[in-house]
Amino acid sequence: MSQPISALGKFGLISHLTGDIRPQRSSTVRGIGDDAAILRFGNTTLAVTADTLAEGIHFDLSYTPMQHLGYKAAVHAFSDLYAMNVAPCQLLVSVAVSAKFSVESMELFYQGLKHACEYYEADLVGGDTSPSVTGMYINVTAVGEAIPERITYRNTAQTGDLICVSGDLGAAYMGLQILEREKKLFEEDAGIRPKLEGYEHVIGKYLRPEARKDIFRFLASSGLTPTAMIDVSDGLSSDLLQICSASKTGCKIHHHKIPVADQTAQTAGEFYMEPLIAALNGGDDYELLFTIPVNEYDKLIGHPEISVIGYITPPEEGCFLTPEHGDKIEIKRMRIGADE
Amino acid sequence: MSQPISALGKFGLISHLTGDIRPQRSSTVRGIGDDAAILRFGNTTLAVTADTLAEGIHFDLSYTPMQHLGYKAAVHAFSDLYAMNVAPCQLLVSVAVSAKFSVESMELFYQGLKHACEYYEADLVGGDTSPSVTGMYINVTAVGEAIPERITYRNTAQTGDLICVSGDLGAAYMGLQILEREKKLFEEDAGIRPKLEGYEHVIGKYLRPEARKDIFRFLASSGLTPTAMIDVSDGLSSDLLQICSASKTGCKIHHHKIPVADQTAQTAGEFYMEPLIAALNGGDDYELLFTIPVNEYDKLIGHPEISVIGYITPPEEGCFLTPEHGDKIEIKRMRIGADE
Repeated sequence: MSQPISALGKFGLISHLTGDIRPQRSSTVRGIGDDAAILRFGNTTLAVTADTLAEGIHFDLSYTPMQHLGYKAAVHAFSDLYAMNVAPCQLLVSVAVSAKFSVESMELFYQGLKHACEYYEADLVGGDTSPSVTGMYINVTAVGEAIPERITYRNTAQTGDLICVSGDLGAAYMGLQILEREKKLFEEDAGIRPKLEGYEHVIGKYLRPEARKDIFRFLASSGLTPTAMIDVSDGLSSDLLQICSASKTGCKIHHHKIPVADQTAQTAGEFYMEPLIAALNGGDDYELLFTIPVNEYDKLIGHPEISVIGYITPPEEGCFLTPEHGDKIEIKRMRIGADE
Repeated sequence: MSQPISALGKFGLISHLTGDIRPQRSSTVRGIGDDAAILRFGNTTLAVTADTLAEGIHFDLSYTPMQHLGYKAAVHAFSDLYAMNVAPCQLLVSVAVSAKFSVESMELFYQGLKHACEYYEADLVGGDTSPSVTGMYINVTAVGEAIPERITYRNTAQTGDLICVSGDLGAAYMGLQILEREKKLFEEDAGIRPKLEGYEHVIGKYLRPEARKDIFRFLASSGLTPTAMIDVSDGLSSDLLQICSASKTGCKIHHHKIPVADQTAQTAGEFYMEPLIAALNGGDDYELLFTIPVNEYDKLIGHPEISVIGYITPPEEGCFLTPEHGDKIEIKRMRIGADE
C-alpha cells in the first residue's frame, strides 16, 4: 500500500517527514519550519535558505525571458531572508538543464542573477550547472547576516497585534492568467502577436518581481521589529494561516483593507473573477506579511506601501475574513496558482 | 546562432558564465571556483556548498534504494566541505519530485538523510519538497564552521608537493557497471534475480559512499594541513587537473601507486577493462585528493588509507602518468561515469 504525496499536501508532507528532527548542534538556533534556518557561530548569527524552482511547475519558458527568470530566482531566495528580517549577503545557485538549452540562454539567465545580486547587494559565490534529462531546475541558496534581536519568526504573533502587508496582492496571479491566455491564443494561431499592453503591472509582478528590501530598510530605520513575519509566496490565505497556526492564534482580516491594484481588479474583471480571490489565493507576490503590536501603529502611519488589513485574535476565535456584505468567512488554505 | 552547452563542457560553461564576477562584500573570502564558498562574518569563518543531483543523470531509481539515495545526497554535500578541510555543521535539502513518488518513498529518502546527518554530526535545518513535472531533483546545501588557518583551497599546490589520495579509486564506477548490467538482464527477463554477491565493495562504494570524515580528523590530529585539496567526484584525472590548473602547476603520478581495490580490478577484468581507466576516469569515489609538502611525509607513513601517488611539478612540465610499461602518458580530462 503506497500513499500518494498529494494525500498529505506540501505542508503535511514536510511536517510528516521532518517532525521528529531535533537539532543537536548548539549552532542551530532554528531549523526547519520558517522561511530560513537561523544559525549562530560565536557572535555571528546567520539566516540560510534553500529552495527549488522547477520548469513546468514554477515557471513556463514559453513566456518567461531567461534574464527575468534569473532575476526572479534570486528574488525568491532573498525574499525568504527578508521574511526573517535579514538582508542577503551571498547567493549560491545550482542549475540543472537539459541539452536543449543554449549557452546564450544560460548567459541571459546569469545576467538576471547578476543584476539581482547587484541590486540586492549580495555576492554570487556559488554557481554550478549540471545536466538534466528534461527541463530546467533551479536551486537558490541565500545567506544573510542577522541582527539577533531583529530576527522575526513566523510563530511569535500575539493576540491583538495588527496584521500588515506590503504593496498589493493578487497582481502576479493575474499577470500569470494574461500570459497563459496569450500563450493559448498563440498556440492556436502563431500569427497572433501577444497583447500585453495595459497589463504591465500585473505581468511585471509575475515575471520580474522584487523582494521588499525597501520595507526591510523602513522597518530597521523606524526601529520597528515585527512580532511575526512571512513572505507572501503561496497566497495571503495560506501564508496568514501559516503565521496563525505557528503562533497558535486566530485572526480577523477585512475585505476592503486588502490592497489590490486597479490593474489587478480590472484584469480579474476580464476573467469574470473576484479580485479578492486572486489576492487571497494567488501566489508569487513576494510581499511581506507581518504583525506589529498595536502601540507601534504610529510608526506605520502614512507609509504608502504598507496596509493594515486586520488583527490577531485568540486561537479559539478562528481565522476569518469580513467580506463587504454578509457574514464573516472562514479563511482556508487554498492555492490557485501554479505551485503545488 | 545558438551554441549548445556541450560545446563548452561543464567546466567551460561555468567559467564562461561566472568569470566576470567580482565579489563586493567583505564577508566573501572565496566565491565560485572551489568545492565550497568561504565566508567570514566577524570572527566566524564558514564554508557553504550547494549542489544538485538529477534523476537519470546522477542516479537511477531502478536500482538505487531511496534510503541510500538520501544518505548519498548528504555525503555528496559533506564531501565538498571536507575537501575544504572543514567539517559539516548543518544541511539543507530541497527536493522536487513528480506525482509518481509515494509518501513511503520520501520517508525512506529522509531516513537516509537523517542517518547521514547523525553519522556526520550535522543538523538537518532546511527541508523543502516541491512538485516536478517528471523525475526527482535533489539539492543539497551544507554549511560548516571553518578554522581559517586550516582551510585548504585547490589552487595552492606547490611544485615538489606530494600528491596523496585516500581509500581506493574506481570502485564506484565498477559498481555502477555491475548495477547497469544487472538492470539490462532484468529488463530482458524479469524472472532473473540480480546477481550482486561478490560485488559488495564496488556496489557499496557506488550506492552508499562515505565522505572521508576519518581523513579530515586524521589531518587535524596529526597537525597536517594539505597545501591543496579536492574531493574525487569526477574521476582522478579530472580532479587532479583541477588542482593543477588552479594552482598553475604540472604533476607526475605513477600507475602502480594508484590505489585500486582487488574487487575493482576483478570487476574491471570481467568487463575486459583496464582497472586504471576506472580509477582515472570513473567518478563518485568521494575520496580526498590532496597535496602536502615533502617534509610532512613522515606524518602519513603507515596510514593504511592514504596513498602517495606522485608529486607536483612546474607548469611547463605538464601533467603526466607513468605507466607500468612504455612512455609517460599525458593526463586528459575524461569522464566515463554518468555525470556530464
